[in-house]
Amino acid sequence: MNLTRFTLALLVATLAISPAAQAQAPLPSWNDGPAKQAILQFVAKVTNEGGPDYVRPGDRIATFDNDGTLWVEQPIYTQFVFLIDRVKQQAPQHPEWKTEQPFAAVLAGDLPKVASSGVKGMVELTMATHTGMTADDFEQIVTDWITTAKHPRFKRLYTECVYQPQLELLAYLRASGFKTFIVSGGGIDFMRPWTERVYGIPPPQVVGSSIVLEFQMLDGKPALMRMPKINLIDDKAGKPVGIGQHIGQRPILAFGNSIGDLQMLQYTTAGDGPRLGLLVYHNDAEREYAYGPAGGLPDSKVGTFPQSLMDDAQKAGWIVVGMKENWKVIFPPEQ
Amino acid sequence: MNLTRFTLALLVATLAISPAAQAQAPLPSWNDGPAKQAILQFVAKVTNEGGPDYVRPGDRIATFDNDGTLWVEQPIYTQFVFLIDRVKQQAPQHPEWKTEQPFAAVLAGDLPKVASSGVKGMVELTMATHTGMTADDFEQIVTDWITTAKHPRFKRLYTECVYQPQLELLAYLRASGFKTFIVSGGGIDFMRPWTERVYGIPPPQVVGSSIVLEFQMLDGKPALMRMPKINLIDDKAGKPVGIGQHIGQRPILAFGNSIGDLQMLQYTTAGDGPRLGLLVYHNDAEREYAYGPAGGLPDSKVGTFPQSLMDDAQKAGWIVVGMKENWKVIFPPEQ
Repeated sequence: MNLTRFTLALLVATLAISPAAQAQAPLPSWNDGPAKQAILQFVAKVTNEGGPDYVRPGDRIATFDNDGTLWVEQPIYTQFVFLIDRVKQQAPQHPEWKTEQPFAAVLAGDLPKVASSGVKGMVELTMATHTGMTADDFEQIVTDWITTAKHPRFKRLYTECVYQPQLELLAYLRASGFKTFIVSGGGIDFMRPWTERVYGIPPPQVVGSSIVLEFQMLDGKPALMRMPKINLIDDKAGKPVGIGQHIGQRPILAFGNSIGDLQMLQYTTAGDGPRLGLLVYHNDAEREYAYGPAGGLPDSKVGTFPQSLMDDAQKAGWIVVGMKENWKVIFPPEQ
Repeated sequence: MNLTRFTLALLVATLAISPAAQAQAPLPSWNDGPAKQAILQFVAKVTNEGGPDYVRPGDRIATFDNDGTLWVEQPIYTQFVFLIDRVKQQAPQHPEWKTEQPFAAVLAGDLPKVASSGVKGMVELTMATHTGMTADDFEQIVTDWITTAKHPRFKRLYTECVYQPQLELLAYLRASGFKTFIVSGGGIDFMRPWTERVYGIPPPQVVGSSIVLEFQMLDGKPALMRMPKINLIDDKAGKPVGIGQHIGQRPILAFGNSIGDLQMLQYTTAGDGPRLGLLVYHNDAEREYAYGPAGGLPDSKVGTFPQSLMDDAQKAGWIVVGMKENWKVIFPPEQ
């Protein structure tokens, strides 16, 4: 390549990714309206060097919940489907599970009975299916499952049941100098194997619930063993704690969709300077799901959005993003 | 700016940061020798696209210990100096400390007596000086201290008693597509307020020992309260655990300087593919300090480098970087 062609190629490459070029149509899957406007205005002001609301790139921290905010969480959390599959897979080695609860209920497909086992039952199921192997082995188990398991209604891989408008928002924020993080009640090690590929968010930028790890020598090889003990429940008041431990900076933008995100939004938007809190509101039964119970939508134990959260959002100025009116499409196009 | 000048400016800017230009003289403060060669060869092979040892940028994780690896740790850990200053500062509000150990020993400047209080005493001192305030307030306390406190021998700010050759190595690795992390036994929140400014390592890429945080509403304002309870001791076997929790990827390069880094180096270099383990060896009493006891150097309770670690390094092929023969300068030039 001679110098002139090299220079030209550079110029073309630079123009292709220049903020000016990109700003021509950010967030193409978002309908014009107050939510899109709020996002664009927020990004414009925090990136406006010299302006009163300028935030230096190192402090442009954006945190996103995962279940119901970046991907589908209905009819049940994806990680719970994984857990059920793990119980079935491990059942031959555990004949006692045929009669022991909550395992028997899982094997019988009796979800209400599983739910009735409460937190204690869920912890028992999680320990039996998510611990007792090395971190490397668990990563492989998750990878094998997530690249094959499909959503029962949409008949697509779970990693394709992610919200196209949110993928665009994540990319837009990164192009605007933000660092994007996941802060989810889901398992940190259930997400890390695929978040970079799917969301562009690498493992160190994933915060989630975690179990205790222990350094062990296995046959002379150093490994991290997953111990049957919970380290952090990264939900509700645990979300700001997870942010404090993992990120060490207060976000300036947080996006959630349920009562589990309340404290993350409170913590984020209470900081000085410009802040933006957002909530996905699932009001689109036709294209995805509709649940609240805010706004009279059907009640849901998965991703509950109570009327109190709607009221809090209004008081605090958080943007409620109804799927139905704000998103042109829900999922990425089929490959 | 017209298009021609714009193109020219682009070209100049691009050439200035191009890998070719930079590769002309990486690591200028490192003497030519086996250590520098090992680093350059390692970086060359993991960045050689199409080569057998190529590592994609997302997996180029490098972890550095802090005390004794990136900055001076003698005659005592910097954070311990901070702790002593905090005890003195808080003493007027705690008249009982005049007689209570280990506080009385700290106030009397009797360090051997403080040391004799053991782990229990250290935990007590840490809880009294590092907890009971919000994360924001502690950040301010650390910032105020670190921008004024000076090293007793070098008479410079502690943040200037950092190793110039290591600053160059961190920058060189990042320019080669690595993500650089600190993994230190020191307090995560004692480091985060200044590591980006001093090392170019932002808060989310700092892993360290931590105390428990709790989300609280203080006068209606959400805050993270620092609770008097240890969350993680990020030292020895705790270092791979900290890596697993915070990074979620096995590093391909790890740099330490003491027995506290053994497990991090074991864990790092046991992975598949190219790996590099390195250890700073403080053998330069004239320009910095000399301590081991490996190689017959004086014994030290701070940053102990026992003969067994030297033997492990030789067996494992870890590079031992003697300061005296490898580093042209120790500290950055005075401003």
